[in-house]
Amino acid sequence: MLKVKDIERIPVDCTMTEFVGTTVLDTIGLVIPGVTPALQEQMNLSTSYPSLGLISSRTGAAGQINAVDEAVKSTNTEVVSIELPRDTKGWGGHGNFIIIGGENVSDVRRAVEIALEYTGKYAGELYISEAGHLEFTFSANAGQALNMAFNAPVGKAFGFFCGSPAAIGLVMADLAVKSSPVEIIKYMTPDKGTSHSNEVIVAVTGDASAVKNAVLTARETGLKLLISLGSYPETPSVPYLR
Amino acid sequence: MLKVKDIERIPVDCTMTEFVGTTVLDTIGLVIPGVTPALQEQMNLSTSYPSLGLISSRTGAAGQINAVDEAVKSTNTEVVSIELPRDTKGWGGHGNFIIIGGENVSDVRRAVEIALEYTGKYAGELYISEAGHLEFTFSANAGQALNMAFNAPVGKAFGFFCGSPAAIGLVMADLAVKSSPVEIIKYMTPDKGTSHSNEVIVAVTGDASAVKNAVLTARETGLKLLISLGSYPETPSVPYLR
Amino acid sequence: MLKVKDIERIPVDCTMTEFVGTTVLDTIGLVIPGVTPALQEQMNLSTSYPSLGLISSRTGAAGQINAVDEAVKSTNTEVVSIELPRDTKGWGGHGNFIIIGGENVSDVRRAVEIALEYTGKYAGELYISEAGHLEFTFSANAGQALNMAFNAPVGKAFGFFCGSPAAIGLVMADLAVKSSPVEIIKYMTPDKGTSHSNEVIVAVTGDASAVKNAVLTARETGLKLLISLGSYPETPSVPYLR
Repeated sequence: MLKVKDIERIPVDCTMTEFVGTTVLDTIGLVIPGVTPALQEQMNLSTSYPSLGLISSRTGAAGQINAVDEAVKSTNTEVVSIELPRDTKGWGGHGNFIIIGGENVSDVRRAVEIALEYTGKYAGELYISEAGHLEFTFSANAGQALNMAFNAPVGKAFGFFCGSPAAIGLVMADLAVKSSPVEIIKYMTPDKGTSHSNEVIVAVTGDASAVKNAVLTARETGLKLLISLGSYPETPSVPYLR
Repeated sequence: MLKVKDIERIPVDCTMTEFVGTTVLDTIGLVIPGVTPALQEQMNLSTSYPSLGLISSRTGAAGQINAVDEAVKSTNTEVVSIELPRDTKGWGGHGNFIIIGGENVSDVRRAVEIALEYTGKYAGELYISEAGHLEFTFSANAGQALNMAFNAPVGKAFGFFCGSPAAIGLVMADLAVKSSPVEIIKYMTPDKGTSHSNEVIVAVTGDASAVKNAVLTARETGLKLLISLGSYPETPSVPYLR
Repeated sequence: MLKVKDIERIPVDCTMTEFVGTTVLDTIGLVIPGVTPALQEQMNLSTSYPSLGLISSRTGAAGQINAVDEAVKSTNTEVVSIELPRDTKGWGGHGNFIIIGGENVSDVRRAVEIALEYTGKYAGELYISEAGHLEFTFSANAGQALNMAFNAPVGKAFGFFCGSPAAIGLVMADLAVKSSPVEIIKYMTPDKGTSHSNEVIVAVTGDASAVKNAVLTARETGLKLLISLGSYPETPSVPYLR
């Protein structure tokens, strides 16, 4: 029988060939070198690839999708599935479960490594207080992952802002869109497009400086409103947008 | 770049014109004086109003909807959207995101102020233990918000009871409905009508004293069963139903 | 008015006739001797029975469904509803709400007692760390509950494995199915079949020793990957599969 002491002998430094790495926000990166056909059939992916790379987190969505966007832009791989569970470890948002496909395992492994690295960076624009959370992301040049998740026009600038409790996200969006000539490409609420998360999420496109400006306006607004609920947010990394 | 010390300079006393106030259950009240047209188009509200008032909480549903019901009854405003995210800060229920519309911003601001005030009172019938939660609400005279959320007949008495884990809610409902000549107007479970919350929710209408009696029976039942799981519940306010 | 001190006078040892018992994972077992017709009509169960037994937990799904499977096999009762709320007390999975029907209250009470007893045992294959969780269950002889929940062929062996964050569940499934000649009967992900949980769930059938072997492979894989996220899991009971 499995004993607690057997479990405690399992090393934290995983040596399985499927293991790539972990990073902030309970994010794990894995590969499946050749997915077993019976499972592949059930998965019903947009395109079948022999090798799969996996990014999966308890908390965060836009940052990791943006990180995977960078990963597929610089490797011979493609995103084949993005799912956003209702998670965030007791908070009001999403986690993520992203599958990358490639013809060979070294390509998808490299893509997962890049995605983990960028997740560490992009997590700097996730703010979590005792009351709620805010998430922001920006790309000067959206790729296939941001297109699949948010209808971002490929090759154009992309901005994302999200606030919880949801009303904060709506006021952020109103002031952001008023501040800059951007186009709304996605609008999500607890009942629309989310997994019933307590968020309003807006994604925008347009000229890069306008998009960046909209995101910064949303961030300033969101921080003021989130802090009005009585506690200061922390970020798992370092803010990088300016 | 945004520094942690910049965040810490943001005052808790928010001075934005959009800010109205906060109260228990991570509830924030906001206004959007003139919603930007590109955003309004995405929102697809039941009626278009130039000014919007927002009530949004991490925890609680019936209490806040009842509070908004009072607010729209006494102001020249109308509820245009009620959404119930799967939230409660790690517990098994809902938060809320409610939008009020009005022709001018002073009306919706007043409505949000009233809703915040009643939220503080109605939160007294929310009970949260280490194992689960119970929520109750009662109105002698349901208005437009309770009608929109729960099909409550306008002008008649309305009662609501909810228990988590879900089985507690079902036994509460059975004994409440047996105890009083009330009519069930809403029945919600994890797979039916909720955002996959761990609750059974029942709303009733009828003669005011019968409805009140049903709610009190549900409360007595729910408290006994919730406490059987080994811990005593707390309420963020003061119980007010008797 | 209800006072806090009134609540504190309610005994933890519940004396209501509806109360059967409680066990790990915030699980409560209840009976409704004769469900009130107005409520029964709303419930829309697969079969109408005068007496209902209820099992309801904040955390866990497969273990409790397997426990109820044992209960209905050895009593004159039948499962009439299985719902899986998005719960787990802040973690990425499900709770459960299961209704058992019977012709008389002593039958359903006995079924609930048996289900509570087996829940205590089967909870030994639920592993919860600071990062995520794993759940396993095995039956040599699936009955009506496992059939209703997972399409398990009645009378055949049944195995279940689930991992969170979701990517862990997918790698567990791939290696488990590669290790043993089993047939996949259910594949669930955040967007498919779950209540937006952060899990990949796979259920299998086949020869008993092959199914058992697949579950053990999944468990070994899942523990290694979950621990790679930096913390060791605990189980609310004692591991029992070997």
